[in-house]
Amino acid sequence: MYRKQLEQAFCRKISGELTIFRYEVLQGEKEAIYEAAYQIDSIISIYELLVEMSSRLSTETLEAAVMFPNILTFLYREWLGYEDSYTADIQYCLDKELAKLRRDYRDMKEENIV
Amino acid sequence: MYRKQLEQAFCRKISGELTIFRYEVLQGEKEAIYEAAYQIDSIISIYELLVEMSSRLSTETLEAAVMFPNILTFLYREWLGYEDSYTADIQYCLDKELAKLRRDYRDMKEENIV
Repeated sequence: MYRKQLEQAFCRKISGELTIFRYEVLQGEKEAIYEAAYQIDSIISIYELLVEMSSRLSTETLEAAVMFPNILTFLYREWLGYEDSYTADIQYCLDKELAKLRRDYRDMKEENIV
Repeated sequence: MYRKQLEQAFCRKISGELTIFRYEVLQGEKEAIYEAAYQIDSIISIYELLVEMSSRLSTETLEAAVMFPNILTFLYREWLGYEDSYTADIQYCLDKELAKLRRDYRDMKEENIV
């Protein structure tokens, strides 16, 4: 019973933090919201992952997380210090797609379409 | 000379597309801009990578890209169909950081701070 309540408390806490984050972001100008796109997307992703992880986190971890103030913002700041493969993943996509564009363009040139 | 002009034309084209994209996004409500965070961040990343790649793309690829309408939006839509490691990367960060939180919490409990 305690375990289930703890999970619910954790999910309510981070949901509340996300609501406050969203509210604060929406107080800014439109340009500022646009510029904050990476932060917004990361914080939403961190929130969604934490909800998904909540049922398999240890009781002690859940207790620690419930006690920790502004855990979403804290984890976002820590995340900025980690390596990620995002640029390499987009690079791979662009290499593939530009190669396709070149092939299509070559075909059209050969058929005198361009 | 033609090569340099082509690179410049490519960079001007995608810079123009990004300006139009930003303008269009900023016409929406603040909530819509917030919801579009992933798209905004991805399109900016695609733009930045293309600028970086422009000097090493083949002349034919640059020609094809210059001819292609709305290439940023097109590449973003294609990108949605690719696999990426973003979730796994954030997951790794959260696992590490939550383990640290748990250790700190355990230490504090042992010292009767919490």
